[in-house]
Amino acid sequence: MVGMRGAYGYNGNGNNDEGGVVGGEAEAEIAAMAVHKVAAPPAQSTASKLKARVKETFFPDDPFRGFKGKPLTTKWVMAVQYLFPILDWVPNYSFSLFKSDLGISYAKLASLPPIIGLYSSFVPPMVYAVLGSSRDLAVGPVSIASLIMGSMLRQAVSPAAEPLLFLQLAFTSTFFAGLVQASLGILRLGFIIDFLSKATLVGFMAGAAIIVSLQQLKALLGIVHFTTEMGLVPVMASVIHHTKEWSWQTILMAVCFLVLLLTARHVSMKWPKLFWVSACAPLACVIVSTLLVFLFKAQKHGISIIGQLKCGLNRPSWDKLLFDPTYLGLTVKTGLVTGIISLTEGVAVGRTFASLKDYQVDGNKEMMAIGLMNIVGSCTSCYVTTGAFSRSAVNHNAGCKTAMSNVIMALTVMVTLLFLMPLFVYTPNVVLGAIIIAAVIGLIDLPAVYNIWKMDKMDFLVCVCAFAGVIFISVQQGLAIAVGISIFRVLLQITRPKMMIQGNIKGTDIYRNLHQYKDAQRVPGFLILTVEAPINFANTNYLNERIKRWIEEESSAGNKQSELHFVILDLSAVPAIDTSGISFLIDLKKSTEKHGLELILVNPTGEVMEKIQRANDAHGHFKSDSLYLTTGEAVASLSTFSKMTTP
Amino acid sequence: MVGMRGAYGYNGNGNNDEGGVVGGEAEAEIAAMAVHKVAAPPAQSTASKLKARVKETFFPDDPFRGFKGKPLTTKWVMAVQYLFPILDWVPNYSFSLFKSDLGISYAKLASLPPIIGLYSSFVPPMVYAVLGSSRDLAVGPVSIASLIMGSMLRQAVSPAAEPLLFLQLAFTSTFFAGLVQASLGILRLGFIIDFLSKATLVGFMAGAAIIVSLQQLKALLGIVHFTTEMGLVPVMASVIHHTKEWSWQTILMAVCFLVLLLTARHVSMKWPKLFWVSACAPLACVIVSTLLVFLFKAQKHGISIIGQLKCGLNRPSWDKLLFDPTYLGLTVKTGLVTGIISLTEGVAVGRTFASLKDYQVDGNKEMMAIGLMNIVGSCTSCYVTTGAFSRSAVNHNAGCKTAMSNVIMALTVMVTLLFLMPLFVYTPNVVLGAIIIAAVIGLIDLPAVYNIWKMDKMDFLVCVCAFAGVIFISVQQGLAIAVGISIFRVLLQITRPKMMIQGNIKGTDIYRNLHQYKDAQRVPGFLILTVEAPINFANTNYLNERIKRWIEEESSAGNKQSELHFVILDLSAVPAIDTSGISFLIDLKKSTEKHGLELILVNPTGEVMEKIQRANDAHGHFKSDSLYLTTGEAVASLSTFSKMTTP
Repeated sequence: MVGMRGAYGYNGNGNNDEGGVVGGEAEAEIAAMAVHKVAAPPAQSTASKLKARVKETFFPDDPFRGFKGKPLTTKWVMAVQYLFPILDWVPNYSFSLFKSDLGISYAKLASLPPIIGLYSSFVPPMVYAVLGSSRDLAVGPVSIASLIMGSMLRQAVSPAAEPLLFLQLAFTSTFFAGLVQASLGILRLGFIIDFLSKATLVGFMAGAAIIVSLQQLKALLGIVHFTTEMGLVPVMASVIHHTKEWSWQTILMAVCFLVLLLTARHVSMKWPKLFWVSACAPLACVIVSTLLVFLFKAQKHGISIIGQLKCGLNRPSWDKLLFDPTYLGLTVKTGLVTGIISLTEGVAVGRTFASLKDYQVDGNKEMMAIGLMNIVGSCTSCYVTTGAFSRSAVNHNAGCKTAMSNVIMALTVMVTLLFLMPLFVYTPNVVLGAIIIAAVIGLIDLPAVYNIWKMDKMDFLVCVCAFAGVIFISVQQGLAIAVGISIFRVLLQITRPKMMIQGNIKGTDIYRNLHQYKDAQRVPGFLILTVEAPINFANTNYLNERIKRWIEEESSAGNKQSELHFVILDLSAVPAIDTSGISFLIDLKKSTEKHGLELILVNPTGEVMEKIQRANDAHGHFKSDSLYLTTGEAVASLSTFSKMTTP
Repeated sequence: MVGMRGAYGYNGNGNNDEGGVVGGEAEAEIAAMAVHKVAAPPAQSTASKLKARVKETFFPDDPFRGFKGKPLTTKWVMAVQYLFPILDWVPNYSFSLFKSDLGISYAKLASLPPIIGLYSSFVPPMVYAVLGSSRDLAVGPVSIASLIMGSMLRQAVSPAAEPLLFLQLAFTSTFFAGLVQASLGILRLGFIIDFLSKATLVGFMAGAAIIVSLQQLKALLGIVHFTTEMGLVPVMASVIHHTKEWSWQTILMAVCFLVLLLTARHVSMKWPKLFWVSACAPLACVIVSTLLVFLFKAQKHGISIIGQLKCGLNRPSWDKLLFDPTYLGLTVKTGLVTGIISLTEGVAVGRTFASLKDYQVDGNKEMMAIGLMNIVGSCTSCYVTTGAFSRSAVNHNAGCKTAMSNVIMALTVMVTLLFLMPLFVYTPNVVLGAIIIAAVIGLIDLPAVYNIWKMDKMDFLVCVCAFAGVIFISVQQGLAIAVGISIFRVLLQITRPKMMIQGNIKGTDIYRNLHQYKDAQRVPGFLILTVEAPINFANTNYLNERIKRWIEEESSAGNKQSELHFVILDLSAVPAIDTSGISFLIDLKKSTEKHGLELILVNPTGEVMEKIQRANDAHGHFKSDSLYLTTGEAVASLSTFSKMTTP
């Protein structure tokens, strides 16, 4: 092999300084073959590369592309419209649109929890209607974010013992949640929520649904002394230990309403046109149960009721925000977790409906809208709120077309707050529990779980871990475990990248994975490898050992006739390389040379080629005679040459 | 476009159930073209796939391949040799080899810190000589691991106030470090240390060198009341505040010896044959300075000396291991960090020299050896030890050939411990400080930093962060920040994968990146995109938005003649896909259909093809008429067809 390098000079790079050993005839033959040179991308300064990278990372949607080449006044109008999407649709808002929203808002009212929940269904929807860009998103408190907030705050403060402090902490956490959300949007870090994969969310939601349902056992069984813990084990223990407190009247009522609600749900799912059945069922249950309690004075027979609620709109609560250092860590952490979770739900729901109706939702703008909504909410006695899937689905089914639905809903809530509060006095807690269970049961998505199992066992593991973590450990830790596994899996893919031996598909110059394509055949004298990952610090050691072992196996297995001459490394699927990766290539080149082999690189992509060139400028390891554009061309040129020199 | 799907049936899959619109002539033309079918890899059970994955992740080096097909007795002998590499080389050990090791061990003795350091240079080398697989690695305490251990333990316990407790914690941490190291080796989790990239290590080492040097200012300037903190700012503040304590005799001595040592270092680097100059310089300095102090009674003139050290070998220290719950967290954490850091150094040094001499070091076996060495060490009054770069380099330069060098060194230390300790009484602390500075200055690798800057700006950022983090914040946090950035970068590459528009290189059927290859040309009617990353939860949102924007731009920009008909997604560089990725492909297929476009997938690799097939079984979105093996074939078939239908 030594001494034949000079012969590669034919690929038009002028590097044949060692003197060819090939005669005129052979040279002519080689010249007839089309061999293409590997090009480096056009030179760019570090600054301009950095700019492009930053743009692609933080502004992948190019939000200002509509602004280009417009006169200044138009730009101003567009900027205002960008910030306040309400201006986009209000001028076109007609009475027919209004009508379709009205019914829905009425239906949504049905599944409201008392006072703070009502407050939270009044202010935030108004804010979102002005700032939000999704037309279908119906905002309000959602079970999961409320659940996480409750469980995190309860670790430090008991809501029963210190109700005011607990309320302060909740408002403060909401404030931080809003701040986190708005910051993510403004800093264009929206991709952070992408790390919650579908598998994670499916498992998490199912676990959360069970945790929420378990909490309702207090109301459903009429237990008075219930555990404050959230896990499956302590709750079931508490339920079993307090069998004496079970009240048969409450249980009877619970079973009846639960069956009613679930039947309504089933009907609506089977015949989508009857969506209003499940939408109205909760309100109907509240009315019926309230009447029943009122008529039979059931509160005296062991059925607990909501009791007196004050009339009046949201009171301001900015004086309740608590930035005391003792609780600052707790509220920031709670805000961060609930903020990101509720954002994930809100943005995911917005995207789902946008894709159904084929319009685009700007993720980062949504985050700003939801964030501001929560900051305003925290100053007006509201919990953390976001776009809720079930409400938005009802909206969508009813054919609502603009964010006006949120305004209508807010107005309905306002009427309730001002005038209808006394009517809730006799509403039994058990019916609220039944409504919550019927609502969250929909979060357990068994077909999705089955689909995940069929598609990808690793995703299934993530899903199961999220689920088990939530019900057995805690809501935050379950989530953290699932995210951790998802990220670890991605890192593992990088650390142990796929490498394949390729072969030639007979009669073509296509080279493909030998394992996948049965009609692909080894080319004698060549070891053709593909690497399918960025080559970086995390995998150079592995690649190095793996490739050396392959070469070793080849060399020891091969007989005289098919002796190994060339190792081809196809870099088509290597999007990036770092300093460790370049050192690895240089090392590999040297060590293959020691074994009398030639290392050929095929089709390095832009960034990789650039760095190979830079390494060349310094050391000159990869001359253009070891770079080819396609495996086909490399094999053709090199084997022609091989035949000529080895008779 | 609608109604033309049936025509694709020609690629031999029998799916032409919609009835072709192409006449006999055209069909003949199409049949003449070679179109290859995309194959899925052969079916494998989940269990066998899992087995292969586990093998590739944890046993990439296939450590037992030599055992295959050997008789049982041979297998036993090989297993013993595998566990005790000493049996591999002892039978071949000759006197000539012995001689070449002796000189080195002598030289190594020179840079030893007192008592515990000496102990640590006695037992661990003996253990490593039996268990280790590297021939060049010289083990002993190293500056970085000692530094980290010191700084972490000092946060909880003051070594001056509670010396015994501090010693106990150090031994316990060493025990845990060994446990962590051995476990990583046994569980074959060696790849964890790969996450310390070269850039991280270069920055970290430079920062650590500066921190270590700063600590020596106490000895060099003769300051008595020195800060216990490690950072640049507090140390410099302490130095400036205590100018009154500076002792000119000490400073004079420090400058002289430092100049001497650095000159020796420089000489050895310039003429590698004179390696012994720098190897002997530290010992020479110790002897000369001790004599000077003894003769001039310098200890009475403000020069601090080591003082009395007890003769005798290592005392057992297993009774000093402290598993008290108060300190358990601290010692486990310290053990984890120092264990991983020292492992990284040891394995990296072993690999470096192995690759220089072209033999293989088994990373996982090394970890077990180093781990056991530290467990034994913790029971015999030793600090954490590992393979040290500087000592090993001296070994290598002197041409040592087996791990016997470690035995020789241990024996020399033994002699010192037994008989020579009284000679150190008058050794001034200042000379030890000078020796340490001269040693660690070599860890600042400016050429490597320059190389990283030239190669990869992001790696440079990692390097600078590690450096700045170490000198301004703390050793562990600097390291954590650098590792965090490295991993974040990898994740960012996944979250924002490279996508390229490809064009045809004139006169060939090669398709390449338009930006990189200037002679590549757009094919009218086609948008050819490549994705260069696994498609998973972390990037499906991005890919979705980005591709839709491209299609939108294409559609709005294109004139009638080059109207867009086909979107080709080249999946050659997509090594893996998860459930979110499959949903994304299905969504994209649907949304392109809405725009009257056809989505074509090209060359899905094994795993991806398998999942596409599974999705097909359920929904049938990707029939084989939208799957091609190469972009060339896809364009050829589809454009032939296009021409025929659009006159």
